[in-house]
Amino acid sequence: MLWHTVYRDKVLMPDYAFAGKHLAYHLLDAMTAHVRTVGRLPDAWVQENRAKIGALEHALARLRQEAVPAYAPEVPDLYFAFNAWLEAELGPEAVSFLRLGLSRNDLDMTVYKMRTRELLLTLGGQLCGLRAEVLGKAEAHLDTLLIAHTHHQPGQPTTVAHYLAAIDGVLERDLERLLAAYGRLNTCPLGSAALAGSSYALDRAYTAGLLGFAAPVANSYDAVASSDWQVEFVSVVQSVALNLSRLVCDLISWTSQGLFELPDTLVQGSSIMPQKRNPIALEHARTRFSRALGGSQTVLYSSHNIPYGDLNDFGPDIQGAIMSLFIQFEGGVALLTACVAEGDFDRRRLAELARATDTTATELADWLTQRHKLSFQQAHRLVGLLVRELRTLGRTPQSATPEDLSALGGPALAVAEIQEALDPLAFVRRRSGLGGPAPEVVHKHIQQARHRLGETRDQLKELQAHLKEARAFLLMTPGKDTV
Amino acid sequence: MLWHTVYRDKVLMPDYAFAGKHLAYHLLDAMTAHVRTVGRLPDAWVQENRAKIGALEHALARLRQEAVPAYAPEVPDLYFAFNAWLEAELGPEAVSFLRLGLSRNDLDMTVYKMRTRELLLTLGGQLCGLRAEVLGKAEAHLDTLLIAHTHHQPGQPTTVAHYLAAIDGVLERDLERLLAAYGRLNTCPLGSAALAGSSYALDRAYTAGLLGFAAPVANSYDAVASSDWQVEFVSVVQSVALNLSRLVCDLISWTSQGLFELPDTLVQGSSIMPQKRNPIALEHARTRFSRALGGSQTVLYSSHNIPYGDLNDFGPDIQGAIMSLFIQFEGGVALLTACVAEGDFDRRRLAELARATDTTATELADWLTQRHKLSFQQAHRLVGLLVRELRTLGRTPQSATPEDLSALGGPALAVAEIQEALDPLAFVRRRSGLGGPAPEVVHKHIQQARHRLGETRDQLKELQAHLKEARAFLLMTPGKDTV
Amino acid sequence: MLWHTVYRDKVLMPDYAFAGKHLAYHLLDAMTAHVRTVGRLPDAWVQENRAKIGALEHALARLRQEAVPAYAPEVPDLYFAFNAWLEAELGPEAVSFLRLGLSRNDLDMTVYKMRTRELLLTLGGQLCGLRAEVLGKAEAHLDTLLIAHTHHQPGQPTTVAHYLAAIDGVLERDLERLLAAYGRLNTCPLGSAALAGSSYALDRAYTAGLLGFAAPVANSYDAVASSDWQVEFVSVVQSVALNLSRLVCDLISWTSQGLFELPDTLVQGSSIMPQKRNPIALEHARTRFSRALGGSQTVLYSSHNIPYGDLNDFGPDIQGAIMSLFIQFEGGVALLTACVAEGDFDRRRLAELARATDTTATELADWLTQRHKLSFQQAHRLVGLLVRELRTLGRTPQSATPEDLSALGGPALAVAEIQEALDPLAFVRRRSGLGGPAPEVVHKHIQQARHRLGETRDQLKELQAHLKEARAFLLMTPGKDTV
Amino acid sequence: MLWHTVYRDKVLMPDYAFAGKHLAYHLLDAMTAHVRTVGRLPDAWVQENRAKIGALEHALARLRQEAVPAYAPEVPDLYFAFNAWLEAELGPEAVSFLRLGLSRNDLDMTVYKMRTRELLLTLGGQLCGLRAEVLGKAEAHLDTLLIAHTHHQPGQPTTVAHYLAAIDGVLERDLERLLAAYGRLNTCPLGSAALAGSSYALDRAYTAGLLGFAAPVANSYDAVASSDWQVEFVSVVQSVALNLSRLVCDLISWTSQGLFELPDTLVQGSSIMPQKRNPIALEHARTRFSRALGGSQTVLYSSHNIPYGDLNDFGPDIQGAIMSLFIQFEGGVALLTACVAEGDFDRRRLAELARATDTTATELADWLTQRHKLSFQQAHRLVGLLVRELRTLGRTPQSATPEDLSALGGPALAVAEIQEALDPLAFVRRRSGLGGPAPEVVHKHIQQARHRLGETRDQLKELQAHLKEARAFLLMTPGKDTV
Repeated sequence: MLWHTVYRDKVLMPDYAFAGKHLAYHLLDAMTAHVRTVGRLPDAWVQENRAKIGALEHALARLRQEAVPAYAPEVPDLYFAFNAWLEAELGPEAVSFLRLGLSRNDLDMTVYKMRTRELLLTLGGQLCGLRAEVLGKAEAHLDTLLIAHTHHQPGQPTTVAHYLAAIDGVLERDLERLLAAYGRLNTCPLGSAALAGSSYALDRAYTAGLLGFAAPVANSYDAVASSDWQVEFVSVVQSVALNLSRLVCDLISWTSQGLFELPDTLVQGSSIMPQKRNPIALEHARTRFSRALGGSQTVLYSSHNIPYGDLNDFGPDIQGAIMSLFIQFEGGVALLTACVAEGDFDRRRLAELARATDTTATELADWLTQRHKLSFQQAHRLVGLLVRELRTLGRTPQSATPEDLSALGGPALAVAEIQEALDPLAFVRRRSGLGGPAPEVVHKHIQQARHRLGETRDQLKELQAHLKEARAFLLMTPGKDTV
Repeated sequence: MLWHTVYRDKVLMPDYAFAGKHLAYHLLDAMTAHVRTVGRLPDAWVQENRAKIGALEHALARLRQEAVPAYAPEVPDLYFAFNAWLEAELGPEAVSFLRLGLSRNDLDMTVYKMRTRELLLTLGGQLCGLRAEVLGKAEAHLDTLLIAHTHHQPGQPTTVAHYLAAIDGVLERDLERLLAAYGRLNTCPLGSAALAGSSYALDRAYTAGLLGFAAPVANSYDAVASSDWQVEFVSVVQSVALNLSRLVCDLISWTSQGLFELPDTLVQGSSIMPQKRNPIALEHARTRFSRALGGSQTVLYSSHNIPYGDLNDFGPDIQGAIMSLFIQFEGGVALLTACVAEGDFDRRRLAELARATDTTATELADWLTQRHKLSFQQAHRLVGLLVRELRTLGRTPQSATPEDLSALGGPALAVAEIQEALDPLAFVRRRSGLGGPAPEVVHKHIQQARHRLGETRDQLKELQAHLKEARAFLLMTPGKDTV
Repeated sequence: MLWHTVYRDKVLMPDYAFAGKHLAYHLLDAMTAHVRTVGRLPDAWVQENRAKIGALEHALARLRQEAVPAYAPEVPDLYFAFNAWLEAELGPEAVSFLRLGLSRNDLDMTVYKMRTRELLLTLGGQLCGLRAEVLGKAEAHLDTLLIAHTHHQPGQPTTVAHYLAAIDGVLERDLERLLAAYGRLNTCPLGSAALAGSSYALDRAYTAGLLGFAAPVANSYDAVASSDWQVEFVSVVQSVALNLSRLVCDLISWTSQGLFELPDTLVQGSSIMPQKRNPIALEHARTRFSRALGGSQTVLYSSHNIPYGDLNDFGPDIQGAIMSLFIQFEGGVALLTACVAEGDFDRRRLAELARATDTTATELADWLTQRHKLSFQQAHRLVGLLVRELRTLGRTPQSATPEDLSALGGPALAVAEIQEALDPLAFVRRRSGLGGPAPEVVHKHIQQARHRLGETRDQLKELQAHLKEARAFLLMTPGKDTV
Repeated sequence: MLWHTVYRDKVLMPDYAFAGKHLAYHLLDAMTAHVRTVGRLPDAWVQENRAKIGALEHALARLRQEAVPAYAPEVPDLYFAFNAWLEAELGPEAVSFLRLGLSRNDLDMTVYKMRTRELLLTLGGQLCGLRAEVLGKAEAHLDTLLIAHTHHQPGQPTTVAHYLAAIDGVLERDLERLLAAYGRLNTCPLGSAALAGSSYALDRAYTAGLLGFAAPVANSYDAVASSDWQVEFVSVVQSVALNLSRLVCDLISWTSQGLFELPDTLVQGSSIMPQKRNPIALEHARTRFSRALGGSQTVLYSSHNIPYGDLNDFGPDIQGAIMSLFIQFEGGVALLTACVAEGDFDRRRLAELARATDTTATELADWLTQRHKLSFQQAHRLVGLLVRELRTLGRTPQSATPEDLSALGGPALAVAEIQEALDPLAFVRRRSGLGGPAPEVVHKHIQQARHRLGETRDQLKELQAHLKEARAFLLMTPGKDTV
């Protein structure tokens, strides 16, 4: 027996299965890039063996067509399984040129970065998709009134568009964070060997280019020992998850009050309560974000109080954790996107509610300051008294009359003046300064945001196209380039 | 289309697969217990239908033999899939008696608790196994010297047994926590329906007994809305994971220094460094504990800032998270247990190291106080000077002579006295008070710990036996009891 | 200069200030207990010095009356500052008997446990206080209707009392956890010295008793190296914080809807919006619980991946973190208790709302099953159709007529029958099984809970009394006992 | 009584004290900027009151010279205390122009961002300082051998400089993250009022400029409701804390082995063990990083599952948490910087150790491949056998002879060849490719890193200078600009 059954069952087998499912083609790409780089070593004894090296590349191309080899108890991992396949195909000697100056350390880190790059691009695409839905919904609700709550109490009227444009602003910053994380991780460890590099004059910049990286990691120890790029990946996840947990919180609350409605395809009934329409897609999104937040902690704990060296703490185990948190997370984003896209705000009920609250009190106070020369404090106090008075009498705020105001010692206003000051839509329209909810202001903001979103999408597409091109070049019939 | 593809693909299908794999038999047990309880309702119209109810139980017994039904897009979950199977078998009418006063809310919580109970028992068994290995190894190293470090510097001599007995003490408390958690969760939600109970006079104590619970949850709202028992489960995991992360930290450090050696079956070589024997089983254990700690956060986040009601935040999603953290966690415990069982301490090197340090300085100072009437402070200062002097001269502490001491103004000691005072084994033997490292003290402590471990094992066995018996009774040919 | 300015400014000075404020009297108690134990050593040379030891105890008693010495750059910590004071008072020789077999390691751990014991008792008292308010409010609302939400949608009618009794159930379990944590930490490290004990025959059981501990820690390494009792302390905090975050979530939501009202002393106005009454005490409670949850992580991270030995990772730094999380946490509990005690539910509006929902649909379906022989599924489907029909027509559920039911193919019910089935109060009353919301059931449950709460309070009082008595004995004029 | 004693004692008073200590001048700056902006409103009634507005600015300038007003029970917070002071000074009417279009919501968020900006700059300066020490130490150890461990076992020789340059690479990325976070938070909420802006035509870009912000937040809802910039702040903290926890782990381990030595001013002795020199400054650094990681969770939890609106969850409570985690964190960085600066590596012992290990085995294998035509696998296997053989015989790897190699079937090497292949310094020198440890390669890398560090320092200085200039302009005798 090579390995203890516990080690085999709890580590080797699940890690092998994971690598076979999620890392196989990245591994073959990285191995291919390494072999091609070895083929360019200037050493005479290497150049004499170009044919063998070419054969090795051909064999890797064939291996790519095969199913992942079944787990065999004598090989510790997928890399050695691929090695075994290649040795069976070509004999041990040729495979030697794969192993020169190569360690699982640099190879694994390269593969993990390649996969994380893809996760970031996927997530970036998802966030763009969500932003598009958010902005689209905003555009459709430029003048749909929404009573914004502050401290959980009705605060002031604004519009659904204004709210959603704010959400879009948060997501825009999250996308910036994501792209910055991409940029910082996109350097290639390959050629760093165990951590001290090797005595072969491998052209690491060439290898990096073959795999679509911007550059090689500038220090070979850094290349295999650093896990900060994983931590930055989960920082992005944490930020998005928290921000979206807040959007979900609002949407669920509005759903409970019938202000936002999901289609039948995104709700569930009850096994016992015949009347139920549970906004379960939103609830699952919330849970997924909670899971992603906990999952992020997995990655943080794993990098805590460990030496700075090559370790499994950011190796296969944690790659599993990252994949698992990503699946939860992107599921949550997808659910939320569907809810934003296919749910809708109930314009009429929102307007009714806006008119039933006393949230325009601020404006009446401002009106008294601006046009009737009361100081801010006098006006604020006066309107506060008025609101309380009406509440006690069970009257709506909109029913306030000039007499009500005079009775409290206020100035004489015309009926129309009071009504204008208390009208929620007028309230919103008068707030037309930079960043305000006035429909034309938000409309313009949305147009600009859409334009910037377009640019972000282009950036993501370019990154994707760059990876695709690099890969196409890498997979070209070997020999074209090397022989 | 019944459900949105996103909802189906991201939620319904994975949750169905999860339930089919991890919750199916618990679900059938709970359904069976409910049907049997319904059969005991005193109402005449129920008693008239005892035959139908008996048929339902028989059908459930047959369903138990079947493979879990394949996912079908029209059923939202496994419970409804089982319902569909039963309806196909018996017609809709009979199944009615399953649905009386039953909600997925109480059913699910019952099922989750049943499964968590099993996880706790499994973990309890594992911890007992680890303790047995720890105590066994301790017994074998009663007089194996170990230089205990404080603040990462050699502190004082003790023995491997003393160290391991301390670890056992921590684990003993963790097992107490685990058993307390078991006791607190072991109450049955079934019969609470959606959360307000039902107007059927279901005998909830009977149902609880059928499923091996100690009692029904005493408030039906509490039964479906509380998630504290999940939080307590992860509290146990957090405690064990942190404690074991510390044991792993020491074992890895000792392995690096060649003081603890793992067998070949628990180490790995390198793809590039021919000399390597990496203590990879310990490293994976550490990572698994980090994952379990992050996974615990998943459960904590999920219960944070949500209403107190029936929610998915402690439903299927989080059950997946719990299962996934458990798998990581128990893998870590199993790896560590294998390392403790099959690795061993190097007695000779530990003794050499003990003699090479100046960690018995404390005892020389005490000797001067006890037998030569120096005050503690004088003795402490004098020995501090002596140690520094010898260090500077490159001499070992054990080479100290009476002259060295006199030269620093100390009292005249015999050579044998100095040697006895500085001998690490003598140091250990003289520490024979309660809790000290003297071999006979630790030996007795271990015997007592083993006895208590035996009692804990008996407790766990009883709990397991109780579940088994309850289940045997539940699965007896229906009809025996109900008809 | 003895210490680097950074070390002095960032570590020594703040830690000194912290110890002076939060640990001073525990430290003096522990030092006193140790000296008294030393005085009982059987050794002749000790017995000859009983007078000096008595003088030392007297000096400690005087020191207790002094202000904590100001920080002095030459002493590393409060323990050495106390030593310096004693040496100035008595000369170095006498102080020697304090230092025998004593290390800061065992001393500090003893002091930390003594303080944590007090935190647990304080928190226990607070939770009892909160439970008393919860149960009192419950008793006052035995028949106040509350529409319980499941999945954020109106689910079924229950009562405020039923809800609050469930909350009480959770808190009862949290109190059990707290008491269990207390029991497990209440063992005394003193006498363990650095970690290997000492060669003095100190009577550790006597010392433990002097300080009110149940027993000495049974292994001296365990005594100074284990941090699991701190982790258990924060586990209790996590559980309570999460559970209470859910209660806060509901109370805030009900406050937003005007169903629960806080007095003026617990709300705040706005600097700009004249109408605001923000339920800010609840909001702050939520934030405090979030802070306590993060603070708990501080303690968990500190025990992660560190060796098992004496370390600062559970020393002064972390004691500061624990104190700081405790202050946040107990502030949150106090705020919430005030809100429960002084806020109140609006009976009338809750009843109106209950009658406006269709949450009694479950009962109508059960009625059809129980009295009109429909199968559960038929009844469930029929009532589902009816609810949807009425919604579409804009009619309230309570307006359902026999004709509505017949039109959908249902059986013929009397008007009174329908009305009874749909009445939320009747719904609640019919749910009188174990754990159900029927007022008399909840009333009885509350009485029992109050009885158990009384027992818990008695337990806490006994623990407190035990500490007080032990301390009174310890502080008795020294000499009474030792000379 | 205005407020409940609990609310006053647990919330108002501590928050007031906190604001007085940490936020007072930011608050006055923001108030001043707002008043100056109000003074530029085009409205006639405002222009008529320029004198009053000027007086208000003068009063604010005087208030700046005063001590923070003592807490008074009738004012809820520092903002209202400042208002009260101003009203006492100028009468209520003039203060009206401060309150126009101003809410505590936008004011607070502005103040919090101003303070967080400063924390980021402070931290940036600290990290630059740490990098300078790391690079300086690296430059001094270009050829100091270090045996790099992989998987906790001696792996390959490298140099201290190579290791430290890698650490510097991580810190460089962390500084990039910090600067990016700064850029993203540096937008000004002021003028957003409660969240819907106001009907005053406030020039928000002007206000932003006065306070040194790059621009106003582009959506007023976003301005007061988003907490993502706080989350990004703690993401930076998390990253740095984790990375530095790894450096600390290595330094402590090297200190334990006597390979890295701290000066007396950064170690502590023991109260009981005369020989101790505890590397306590490093240990405290580790604990501080653990506290900072937990503290970060405080901020994350606070933004979880809350509505998107103005809330205390990212208000005063959490500002306290942020300040408290920052204090812990910067203390840790300062301690670690002192240790790197004043501790040193022991060149001689490191070299001895390097020669005692078999870590150059990789190079001997490569030698056999490159010069003796063995395949990689043959060479790897052969050297593996040789290493094991020598271990068994108790011989050092460096003692390997040509005969040893031949005996295992290897090719005939000259003695000098073997010695060169096995010499650790030669090993390092031959690794001169991009990123390798060869001294001249690392030397060049360090020079470049220093250059980039210089640029980063310049960037930080510019940011600081910009804030300083903006502030100088803001504090210029009011009237110059406004009248």
